[in-house]
Amino acid sequence: MNDRGLLIIFSGPSGVGKGTVRREIFNTLEHDFEYSISMTTRKKRASEVDGVDYFFRTREEFEKMIKNNQMLEYAKYIENYYGTPLQYVNQTLDNGKDVFLEIEVKGAAQVKEKMPDGVFIFLIPPDLDELRERIVNRGTDSSEMIEERMKVAQKEIEMMSFYDYAVINDKVTLAAKRVKDIIAGEHFRVERVIGKYLKMIQEYNQ
Amino acid sequence: MNDRGLLIIFSGPSGVGKGTVRREIFNTLEHDFEYSISMTTRKKRASEVDGVDYFFRTREEFEKMIKNNQMLEYAKYIENYYGTPLQYVNQTLDNGKDVFLEIEVKGAAQVKEKMPDGVFIFLIPPDLDELRERIVNRGTDSSEMIEERMKVAQKEIEMMSFYDYAVINDKVTLAAKRVKDIIAGEHFRVERVIGKYLKMIQEYNQ
Repeated sequence: MNDRGLLIIFSGPSGVGKGTVRREIFNTLEHDFEYSISMTTRKKRASEVDGVDYFFRTREEFEKMIKNNQMLEYAKYIENYYGTPLQYVNQTLDNGKDVFLEIEVKGAAQVKEKMPDGVFIFLIPPDLDELRERIVNRGTDSSEMIEERMKVAQKEIEMMSFYDYAVINDKVTLAAKRVKDIIAGEHFRVERVIGKYLKMIQEYNQ
Repeated sequence: MNDRGLLIIFSGPSGVGKGTVRREIFNTLEHDFEYSISMTTRKKRASEVDGVDYFFRTREEFEKMIKNNQMLEYAKYIENYYGTPLQYVNQTLDNGKDVFLEIEVKGAAQVKEKMPDGVFIFLIPPDLDELRERIVNRGTDSSEMIEERMKVAQKEIEMMSFYDYAVINDKVTLAAKRVKDIIAGEHFRVERVIGKYLKMIQEYNQ
């Protein structure tokens, strides 16, 4: 079975807990897919490792990659670039391995344009009051910023219709398990495998 | 969460091993769905129990149900009717439980017309030589009949495109696990849940 791997796009509003669920999947669940490390121009924190947490690059290096179409998706937040290098994704998929991206909703929309046959999974808060609470508790945003984030979150949830799946983050372990089940089942979608089986019939009749 | 349950249609060519995989799922895997018992007019065998293996009914009773639109699907094989009573399926789905049907390809096509939002899973032989071998080993068919069954099987595999998923029956335990993963993941398809989340936004803004 040398099928091309699946591209899994895991996204959702800011504050919903994407990183926590992703870490739960990769650290505690058996899985058979690779995590695509993002690239950024922001400064490396003391606890971070280049090539593990992010690929840390200069602004010039990042902008050169954009110009050369080497980014699958990217965005600029507060003066810094964040994005997904295309080469790693393509190589891993070609090797028959699934690739898992954890990215912002805007980045996911870019990937949808370029690779519409990816598996798009949206992580959703159990309710919006709880999302607000989480953003407040992070303590990084002003109250104006919090209201702005809530408006953006609602708009993003409305964009859910271009995703394939929506998973509620009521409990991290449950959400992680759901994402894992989704990925397992997606391998058997008829449109992904039918070519192989029609070939089997052809060969039998030769 | 009082969502309506999923209707799961499990089908595939004669001889592929649908019954074996279904029993593996229901007897050995944790599952959260109900098996829909078929109805038939054929004679009960000594080992069978009415309401467990089948609902055994007279031809008159069965034909009356057909006339009253009380069958989700049915077919006649060698003088006997086989089919799925509609009431049990609808009641169970309304109670929020998933219903699992194991039926022939022709029956699945009837269900597709009536309930297109079901989850259609096709069980496929690892290769056609092996399917032929299984049919031969059952010892119930003449060699003419075997060639006829092989032609039908190939036609049925070509019909796979109207299914949602295709699972290969290379090993019963693996096939059963795949079917279970598919059903778990299907609950999170965006088109099944988006209504609920849009309502959440509405309520937050009230």
